[in-house]
Amino acid sequence: MNVFVIGIGLIGGSLSLDIQEKYPEAILYGIDASEAHLEEALKLGVIHHKSTFDALGKAAIVIVSIPVDVQIEIIPKVLDAINDHALVIDVGSTKELICTVIDNHPRRRNFLATHPIAGTEFSGPKAAIKGLFVDKTNIICEVEKTAFKLQEKALEIFSKIGMRIRYMDSKSHDKHIAYVSHLSHISSFMLGKTVINKEKNERDIFDMAGSGFESTVRLAKSSPAMWTPIFEQNKENIIETLEEYINNLQQFKKLMEQDNFSEIYNEMENANYIKQILNGIK
Amino acid sequence: MNVFVIGIGLIGGSLSLDIQEKYPEAILYGIDASEAHLEEALKLGVIHHKSTFDALGKAAIVIVSIPVDVQIEIIPKVLDAINDHALVIDVGSTKELICTVIDNHPRRRNFLATHPIAGTEFSGPKAAIKGLFVDKTNIICEVEKTAFKLQEKALEIFSKIGMRIRYMDSKSHDKHIAYVSHLSHISSFMLGKTVINKEKNERDIFDMAGSGFESTVRLAKSSPAMWTPIFEQNKENIIETLEEYINNLQQFKKLMEQDNFSEIYNEMENANYIKQILNGIK
Repeated sequence: MNVFVIGIGLIGGSLSLDIQEKYPEAILYGIDASEAHLEEALKLGVIHHKSTFDALGKAAIVIVSIPVDVQIEIIPKVLDAINDHALVIDVGSTKELICTVIDNHPRRRNFLATHPIAGTEFSGPKAAIKGLFVDKTNIICEVEKTAFKLQEKALEIFSKIGMRIRYMDSKSHDKHIAYVSHLSHISSFMLGKTVINKEKNERDIFDMAGSGFESTVRLAKSSPAMWTPIFEQNKENIIETLEEYINNLQQFKKLMEQDNFSEIYNEMENANYIKQILNGIK
Repeated sequence: MNVFVIGIGLIGGSLSLDIQEKYPEAILYGIDASEAHLEEALKLGVIHHKSTFDALGKAAIVIVSIPVDVQIEIIPKVLDAINDHALVIDVGSTKELICTVIDNHPRRRNFLATHPIAGTEFSGPKAAIKGLFVDKTNIICEVEKTAFKLQEKALEIFSKIGMRIRYMDSKSHDKHIAYVSHLSHISSFMLGKTVINKEKNERDIFDMAGSGFESTVRLAKSSPAMWTPIFEQNKENIIETLEEYINNLQQFKKLMEQDNFSEIYNEMENANYIKQILNGIK
């Protein structure tokens, strides 16, 4: 089974490692815009061979794991290049635009739109890790537009590497993911900015920062190249979530200014409900 | 060595466990407003004996680990009740008010103001864990106002349980901690609120939440009883940090509305500097 992975970073590389383990007969080919990344992926055993678009005709499966702005350029070309039985899986963090772009492609039925909710704040081939997807959720969008046999093939892979599957339309995916992922990233980036700006002349102040600070700003380490196009593609949903978040912060500030600490207590107690939600995640 | 711990929760309980380990001869007495917590602490081995304020005269060391509003009531009474050679250590997250309140107390020299930067989002005696303080920073405020022999005793304990020491005036402590701790908590509480409000009718949406979301909202599990008085005591500093944070979020939203994604890229790249800072924390 020839598996091509376009974009050998955190997600593409981790998928490659897991597929190698679960399908010993699979041969993993890597394609990447960065020759250095390809070399590194080869050296780390993340892929078996470097490859190019010219070779896509022999692929059984193509996984496309690249920034979502490049994806909408590349995926139509990948579909043009594959054979009739190949499956093309995209794993980007936005789903509506890619599903629209691909909707009338003659090989639409060879394509499956997915979003594995897994990752770390790191990027590049050395960020790839085995077992990243165990017990994680994979959102599959517009599954009915993919050929049934190829759906089956994809589900078998996702199931073998340990993922739970959820089905959703692409519009709903983008709306909800703005709340439970994209907003967290912006909150974290801006928290990092606020503290860096304020404390830039007093670096050793960061001795004062503990695990709580670390936890809330961890996502501010994330790759701008990956996240800028996600924010661009999901602009409307994200602006809406940001407005609500900013309003909530302003209201909190107002309560503080009014010395209404009993209401602040209530606000925090209500937010404690997140415990139940997070227990669901674990 | 009789050590009294007033408030047998996460911090008080963890200190009690570490002191038991490092000072096998120490006898740990617990005092707590909650009889249930005291019983639990006794059962879990967090303390050796339950005790009361009447017994404080026999204490060598008293650790006060209670919400910071109760602390300013209790610590003067503790100082009244101890013997002349006892050391009273407070471990609250705000330092300016307690230092002011205690400043003219006849036993000021028996008191040491500290803030161990350690913790989790959990509370109560069962949140107490051994080794919580290893490689963590303890901020000591106005150390010169504590009797030298008692400073020495405190430093020996902190050093044995693995803490690094930083000295700071209480005003600077409260200003900086607003940025590197208190703001993170508010950001997290309000992120939790935003998502809970939006998604309350679609609970299974939280299947979509991954480790990034979890990381940014973890602190929203924190205890309102502990955090409300911290926010109250550090009101002015926190309002200032909140204003800056809200401004940064508003500017980010504006950049999105203007489709200025190259500047958004820059914003994120600048915030990536947090990597260096977090490496310092680890």
